[in-house]
Amino acid sequence: MDIHRLDSYIRPAGGDGRVRIVDLRRFFHAGIIAGISEEVMSLDAAGPNPLERLAEALSGDLAEVNALISERLSSEQVSRIPEVTSHIVGAGGKRLRPMLTLAAARLLGNGGPHHVPLAAAVEFIHTATLLHDDVVDESTRRRGGPTANLLWNNKSSILVGDYLFARAFQLMVSSGSLRVLGILSDAAATITEGEVLQLVSTRDLGTTVETYMKVVRGKTAALFSAAAEAGGVAAGGSDSETASLRAYGEALGISFQLTDDLLDYGDRDIGKNTGDDLREGKVTFPVILALRDATVEERSFWSRTIEKARTAEADVDEARAILERRGALAETRSAALGWSAKAKETLAALPDDPLRSMLSELADYVVARIV
Amino acid sequence: MDIHRLDSYIRPAGGDGRVRIVDLRRFFHAGIIAGISEEVMSLDAAGPNPLERLAEALSGDLAEVNALISERLSSEQVSRIPEVTSHIVGAGGKRLRPMLTLAAARLLGNGGPHHVPLAAAVEFIHTATLLHDDVVDESTRRRGGPTANLLWNNKSSILVGDYLFARAFQLMVSSGSLRVLGILSDAAATITEGEVLQLVSTRDLGTTVETYMKVVRGKTAALFSAAAEAGGVAAGGSDSETASLRAYGEALGISFQLTDDLLDYGDRDIGKNTGDDLREGKVTFPVILALRDATVEERSFWSRTIEKARTAEADVDEARAILERRGALAETRSAALGWSAKAKETLAALPDDPLRSMLSELADYVVARIV
Repeated sequence: MDIHRLDSYIRPAGGDGRVRIVDLRRFFHAGIIAGISEEVMSLDAAGPNPLERLAEALSGDLAEVNALISERLSSEQVSRIPEVTSHIVGAGGKRLRPMLTLAAARLLGNGGPHHVPLAAAVEFIHTATLLHDDVVDESTRRRGGPTANLLWNNKSSILVGDYLFARAFQLMVSSGSLRVLGILSDAAATITEGEVLQLVSTRDLGTTVETYMKVVRGKTAALFSAAAEAGGVAAGGSDSETASLRAYGEALGISFQLTDDLLDYGDRDIGKNTGDDLREGKVTFPVILALRDATVEERSFWSRTIEKARTAEADVDEARAILERRGALAETRSAALGWSAKAKETLAALPDDPLRSMLSELADYVVARIV
Repeated sequence: MDIHRLDSYIRPAGGDGRVRIVDLRRFFHAGIIAGISEEVMSLDAAGPNPLERLAEALSGDLAEVNALISERLSSEQVSRIPEVTSHIVGAGGKRLRPMLTLAAARLLGNGGPHHVPLAAAVEFIHTATLLHDDVVDESTRRRGGPTANLLWNNKSSILVGDYLFARAFQLMVSSGSLRVLGILSDAAATITEGEVLQLVSTRDLGTTVETYMKVVRGKTAALFSAAAEAGGVAAGGSDSETASLRAYGEALGISFQLTDDLLDYGDRDIGKNTGDDLREGKVTFPVILALRDATVEERSFWSRTIEKARTAEADVDEARAILERRGALAETRSAALGWSAKAKETLAALPDDPLRSMLSELADYVVARIV
């Protein structure tokens, strides 16, 4: 195909006239050559969502990451390992976190020799925490299917999670960069400390916004920020560039988690049990807000459901009604949008590149489900 | 005190004329100056056991390791972390594995600047696996006291274990040695793979000696060997020296585990529930041996207890009787002694030093409970 012709990259997507872009990076390049502005280009690409477009742009790297993940998960003698992990790794995983590593590395250079193993390490850490979270939360559904702890048992999830942590560190060591190892091992400590803090805050109505933010920075934002920063460092980015990537990942992660908290009191099907947080006694951002000026009746509702773990099916609707009444849903939405905007602002310090635009659109996309 | 006088280091220990050596390293040094052979010296020191003598010789380093462990476990905001870990880290932990790191480093040099953080990292990895093992095994007793999963809950044990893994990697990164990071992250992968293999082999009477050995190399020997090797590398040891240390740790670990397997069918109080392996359905070395030429009745016993998990209190005695009859206890004892002897042989390649003698005596000591 003629790599300078825009239509070389366009394929029909469905019968409604929508199109799909085959190789978004080259497409943009061709667009720039053809004198078409980036903004118009991104409107043209309305078919795939920003995550899909990022996956498209990074498709070569992602294929290598996936191959490496498969290779490192195979264990001839212990078939339980690929069994448990293929279920979770293959089950609609978005590869969001490794894509942050890849995008950061490609944005600041040619990626370096190590961005692929680092991206795989990031996905391993993420998968390990999912396996352990599902045991701790006693979850039965993940990504629209049964969880590994339900399909096998808690023991497998614990030990295979440990195996993934160890494999992640092996991959990180293979990168040969002590700076990257420092970033990712610090993130692992922050993540696990956040998980313990979340556990001890469970069913505690005295949980403060400060504690909540520490939990969120730990359980979600730490890996987003380390993933982006590690990619930048692997590509030899400057200190200001890698700091921006870190700040971007952190803000994106917080925005992502606030959105998740909000959706847990929503009514849409997102392949996750709505009302999980209430049943698990998690004191999330909307609940903390609603507790500030709760009536006696409302406080008694939260005390019964969250503190005392006595919940009925209808309680999720009741909780949603209270949160709506107290303005807690609107305020959580606003906070999520604020962090999304902050994520986009941090990108200004990075090179103007189609990938930067995609990261900016990604920040819109993580909150798109609630706007 | 006069550091050249042997009696400066001797204190009474109990009223039966036995003595305790205060500073074994200096004591040996004084002994060498006084022209007393090392062999006689070690006979003189009959009071403390080899582990205590090693602890004495490494007391300065060990104090630093303990201080570092305490410092890294403190978490201002998450008090559950020091609560769970102080219980297990403080509860009669022998610090055997970190002592291997320290001894190896001191044997091959002055220790280097990093042997202390590496020893702490080794202890963190060990403690993390204990926390997770107790959840997986549903244990209620550890080191003569209740387990953390019993005192708190499985969730705390899982997440605090993860936190310790992460802290271990942070300490390893601080050593600044990619080679050491490679040794310890490879060990972590071997350990966790061994744990998964043990899980899937549980209650499987078809478990082979080969599988058993892979489990033991994983769950026990990998950390012993990595601990010793990492200490040697940190001190700048030669390739042959660090390979010997690795082989020593591996043989010591296998010997240690075979001894544990044997004692689990013994009748002495070792601060561990005798018969745990039978109740947990673990197919250990003596059982594999006894299955080779089991009678129909014996096979039916193992099938009921191990395969089908139907055990009564008297079954441990019955199991012991069968193992005795099949010669499985004697053969396990002989295998443990063989690995202990192998451990001692590997020390020949290392410098002749009081610490080397202590490592040799340690290899005797780990099997002393069964001779």
